[in-house]
Parts: sequence; C-alpha cells; structure tokens
Amino acid sequence: MRRMTAQLWAVVPAGGAGTRLWPLSRSASPKFLHDLTGSGRTLLQATHDRLAPLVGERVLVVTGVAHQEAVRRQLPAVPEDQVLAEPSPRDSMAAIGLAAAIVERRDPEALIGSFAADHVIADPEAFRECVVEAASVAETGLLVTIGIMPARPSTGFGYIHLGAPLEGFTTARAAAAFVEKPDAERAAGYLASGEYRWNAGMFVARARVLLDLLADEHPDLAAGVRSIAADPSLLEAVWPDLTKIAIDHAVAEPAAAAGRVAVVPGGFGWEDVGDFAALADLLPETEPGLKVLGEGGSVLALESTGLVVAQSGRSVTVLGLEDVVVVDTGDALLVTDRAHAQDVKSVVEALKRTGRTELT
Amino acid sequence: MRRMTAQLWAVVPAGGAGTRLWPLSRSASPKFLHDLTGSGRTLLQATHDRLAPLVGERVLVVTGVAHQEAVRRQLPAVPEDQVLAEPSPRDSMAAIGLAAAIVERRDPEALIGSFAADHVIADPEAFRECVVEAASVAETGLLVTIGIMPARPSTGFGYIHLGAPLEGFTTARAAAAFVEKPDAERAAGYLASGEYRWNAGMFVARARVLLDLLADEHPDLAAGVRSIAADPSLLEAVWPDLTKIAIDHAVAEPAAAAGRVAVVPGGFGWEDVGDFAALADLLPETEPGLKVLGEGGSVLALESTGLVVAQSGRSVTVLGLEDVVVVDTGDALLVTDRAHAQDVKSVVEALKRTGRTELT
Repeated sequence: MRRMTAQLWAVVPAGGAGTRLWPLSRSASPKFLHDLTGSGRTLLQATHDRLAPLVGERVLVVTGVAHQEAVRRQLPAVPEDQVLAEPSPRDSMAAIGLAAAIVERRDPEALIGSFAADHVIADPEAFRECVVEAASVAETGLLVTIGIMPARPSTGFGYIHLGAPLEGFTTARAAAAFVEKPDAERAAGYLASGEYRWNAGMFVARARVLLDLLADEHPDLAAGVRSIAADPSLLEAVWPDLTKIAIDHAVAEPAAAAGRVAVVPGGFGWEDVGDFAALADLLPETEPGLKVLGEGGSVLALESTGLVVAQSGRSVTVLGLEDVVVVDTGDALLVTDRAHAQDVKSVVEALKRTGRTELT
Repeated sequence: MRRMTAQLWAVVPAGGAGTRLWPLSRSASPKFLHDLTGSGRTLLQATHDRLAPLVGERVLVVTGVAHQEAVRRQLPAVPEDQVLAEPSPRDSMAAIGLAAAIVERRDPEALIGSFAADHVIADPEAFRECVVEAASVAETGLLVTIGIMPARPSTGFGYIHLGAPLEGFTTARAAAAFVEKPDAERAAGYLASGEYRWNAGMFVARARVLLDLLADEHPDLAAGVRSIAADPSLLEAVWPDLTKIAIDHAVAEPAAAAGRVAVVPGGFGWEDVGDFAALADLLPETEPGLKVLGEGGSVLALESTGLVVAQSGRSVTVLGLEDVVVVDTGDALLVTDRAHAQDVKSVVEALKRTGRTELT
C-alpha cells in the first residue's frame, strides 16, 4: 500500500433527522448526537475518534444551525471555527462543497475525505487503512469512493459497480457506475456477483479536483461555495440559492461515467444504523435474543426477544413478545416490532400532522 | 319481589394484590384503589356508590393496615371507625366474620351483604334489585349468594349449581352445590346447561346466621371474631391465630350441602377485572380495536389494536402490533399482549425473585 503524501482533511457532514429512529432520534437531537452502541461515545464522537489518528485537528464538521453548539460540546478537540453551520439544509453537495472550498483556500492540493457523522464502523483500524489507500489513489487526481462489501442483499443502499483494477494499487478498482437502490431480486444478483459494493457516501479527493468536477456539472454551485470560502460574510446571502443536490448525483455519477472515479473496497463492519432493526443487529445480546441499549439493569424480559432502548430510568418489562421493539425515553414511548422498523418514520409524520411537533 | 324488612349492612372486603394487573396495581396501591373504567371513580368508590342507596352509612370496609388511610381518604362518607384494618391477611372468612360479629353486636337480626371492593358492575340498579331479593330471602334464615349469569365459558371462576326454585320468591333458587373452577370442556357444559352461575363471592345473610353457620364448622374462628367484636383491644392478640380460610370453603360449601344456601341469579354486567384482557373488554374503543385507559390524547396507535394504559403523562405510540398491551406508569412500563394477560403475575414473581420489590 502506498502512503498518502498530501495533507488529508476530514469533512464530517452531521445532518439528517433519523426519523426511523424516533423517539431516540429527534429533530432537536438527531441520531449522530447519540451513543447508539453503548460505547460511551456518540456516533459523532466515534466518527471523530476514528479519523483523528489520520487528520489530527484537520477536521471540518458541517451541521445545522440548531446543532452547532451540541457538536462543539461533543467535540472539544475540534477548533470552534471548524464546526460550520448551514443556515438551512441544502443537501450533501453544498455542505461538502463548502468544506472543500475552505480547505482549497488553505491548500489547493490538500485532500478531503468526507465521512458521515452517523455511521458505525466495527474495525476502525481497517477503516483507516482503506482511507489511506483511497487518499493515495486520490493524489492521482481521481475522485475516490470507499465501497463497502455487502453483508446482505440490502435494498436500502445504492451500489457501486466495480470496474477494472487500478494499476499500481493494492485493492483499488475503477468505478464502472453508481447504481440506485435495487429491488430485492437485483440486490441478490449484486451480492452473488461479487462485483458490487455498497455506496456509503464516503468520498476522498483533492479539494480542487472535487470542486473542478463540480464546476463542470454545476458551475453556479461550485462558484457559490468558493465565494463563501473566500468571504464568509457572504454565507447568509449566497447559501439559500445554492442548488440542493446530493454529492452522488452532482459529481460522483457523471465523473464515474467519465472514467474519473475509483473505488477502494472496504470490509470493516459498516452500518448506517438506519432503523431499529439495524440498531438491534449492532448490539450484543444481554440474554438470548434480547438486545438492550441503555440501563440493562432496568430491563426485564420474560419469554421475549427483540430490542429495548431504556433511556427514561424507569423499569421496562416485556412479556411473551417476539422481535418486539420498545424505545423508552423521558417524554415519549414507542412500541413496535422489527418488521415495522422501516415504518417508524410514519410516526413522525403522524405526529407532525396532528400538531404534536414538540415530540418530533 | 318482597322487600327486606331488616336493616342491611354492606361489608366490603378490600384486599387482593391484583398482580395480574401489574404495574397498574401494586402491593402499595392495589387495584381497588384505581379507576379502571375511566369513570373518575375508583373500584372501591364505585362499590360504595353502588351500595349506598341500599345501606346509607351502614358500611364496613375491611382492608389491610397498609391501605386503611387510602380507603378512608377515598370514602369520606364512611365513618372512620367503619374502616377496619386487618393486622395481617387471614383470607375472606376472618375478614367477613369480623364484620359480621360487629354488626351482630349492634343488631343480631341485621343482615349483612358482602361485596368485594374490586369488581365492576355495568348496571348498578339491576344489581341493587338482586341484593334486595337476596336480602329478603336471607330474612328466612338462609345464606344467600348472588350467582352471576355466565357471559362466556370461563375457567377462571368457581360456579354455583342451581337447585329447585325457592317457593315465594321471584328468581331465587336453592344452591345445589358450589363447584371449583372447571376445565374448558366442563365450563362449556356449564354454560350450555343454563343451570350454573358464576360464584362472585357475594353473600347475604343475617349476621347471626352467618356466624352460627361458621360456629358449626369452625367454632374457634367464630368465637375469635365474636371476641374481637366484644372487645376490640383483643384484635392484635386474637387475629394472628384465626384460621386462614375462604368464606366459600368455611361456610358456603358445607351449608349448601346441608340445604341452607339459596342463589339469586343476577345479570347486571359483572366483571372482576382479573387481568388486562378483562380490562380491555371493559373499556370503550377510542379507535377501531384500540382501548385506552388514561390520557387518550397522549396515545397514538398506527395499524395497531390492543390496550394502552397511559398513566405517566408521556406520549405512547404503538405501531403495527396486534392485541398489544402497553401499561405505562411513572416508574414502570409493561409491554405484553392479550394472550399473555394471565402471565403478568409471573412478572411480579420475577421482580421479587431478583430483589426489585420496590416495583411490586
């Protein structure tokens, strides 16, 4: 494996409401601010912990205005002016683009690596090895993504179709194409072929390369984030008009089509903890079939399997239920089962519809 | 229907832990102290309300020492010295026998009617008509029970086998026998025959008659309660040695065998609210298939049926569950389903076994 020689900056987009993890995740306290693994560190903190050995203080977190203070409190090691607040959500390209433009002004040849604040990675060392490989590939001027070895035929993620091996690198391949979330049959085919990786939204590139690729496709957006980086006082004026688009569509897909994207395959136990079924899969069993996040001593499970999130300090008892999901917080309780994990977002919609926004 | 001519006293045994209604019912706050119907009155208060038109202030409540104050607070209309505290639980015969002995000293010919504090009756007027009929039968010197028309082939209650009609009375029959809780097949046969009634533990008799019947079978027990009634300072000394036996076994069964028990059949919508399935049956639907006890506005049910007891002030959401039972109290949460309603008592046993008695 080569070593990267340019400086790497970590860009951490910290957004997303995580409504399928309600009432654990709320708009005022989204999932990246929570410890979902029982490790004692929130997802945001764990993301920082994972990256710090590679980047030291070279971290930019981009989050919503409402969460800037919480992010700063959770990451005291990150200089305050490196926790950027978006005045409003403009999707991932604007957030990552602004961070890239700020890095570009400091050092146009610097690398940025973008890693969401709300993912869980089982093997941080293996993750860092992938990032180093991706960074060394990115130094050749490519946009590099880390493609996750699929653990199951998921229909919840986009995929990256692997192309030819990249000469001179251990594991890197060309990215033949980014493909949308597949149906079940297609997902099974992707898994069986061995030629597809999950798109976890991890991108590594020289700051300048990323912004130039963006300028080819969305010149106004590239110019907008570069103008804010040059004069931060323009943020409030320029931000609201930036194109709202994901980095995948804005840059990764067209660049892949143009042969300018590489993939470093990664197998380090990645989860995006999208719903309570995924959360249950992450946690160790406290009793056969039972997963507990929170105060295990307050949970009593009789003839039951499933997940209990115990955050209210009250005792929680489940009796005779299979695959139950109980999420007990100070002001709101959710009871459902694993099969309905994806439907939890409909609860948030129903609460908003009926005017109980204080709970969402 | 004849009218009773002797004075009737209501005796209300207020005991029983109601462990199948945990965590709503606790040892420190058993089910009779709770409003389980959403009426605004506790079961104890509703019992008193139901009897007051017949007995006025002639009420004796027998409860545990721990609950004497709560009972007095809930029943301000009952003179304080008519709320008796058992120093320890000695089963129903000692409790009702002591009350009978106290009434006997005031007026040996007075009638007592014993009615548990934790039953629910849909039609109080029909209930009172039965009690009046039972009292008029009791004036002939019989022990009279009210036999409930079975609503279903329950295996959870004892039954009374009806005998010949009682001459001179509208509905009263001889009680051929008391029979134990049957198995399912036998229960179905009882229901089909039309000749069996549920034994709801309601007994009406002259105070003297009841105690004389008791004296025939358990002379020490009869003498014990009569001695306490004569000199209340003997309570602490005599009570602990009283035979622990239910009134059914102590008096009703042998008296029935001797032809000294009558039954007045009753059909007034009786429930003993023994578990959460029974509680769900009692409550009106707030949405199709959903029953709520407590703050209905805090409950959100999506694609769900079952029972939610909302007592903590928190929002409770159930998603995609059938026949779920959620009981949400300030310090303890229970999640189960209707099929496990009878097993809830095992939770209390498990909590005791694991040292969490503060929750039981």
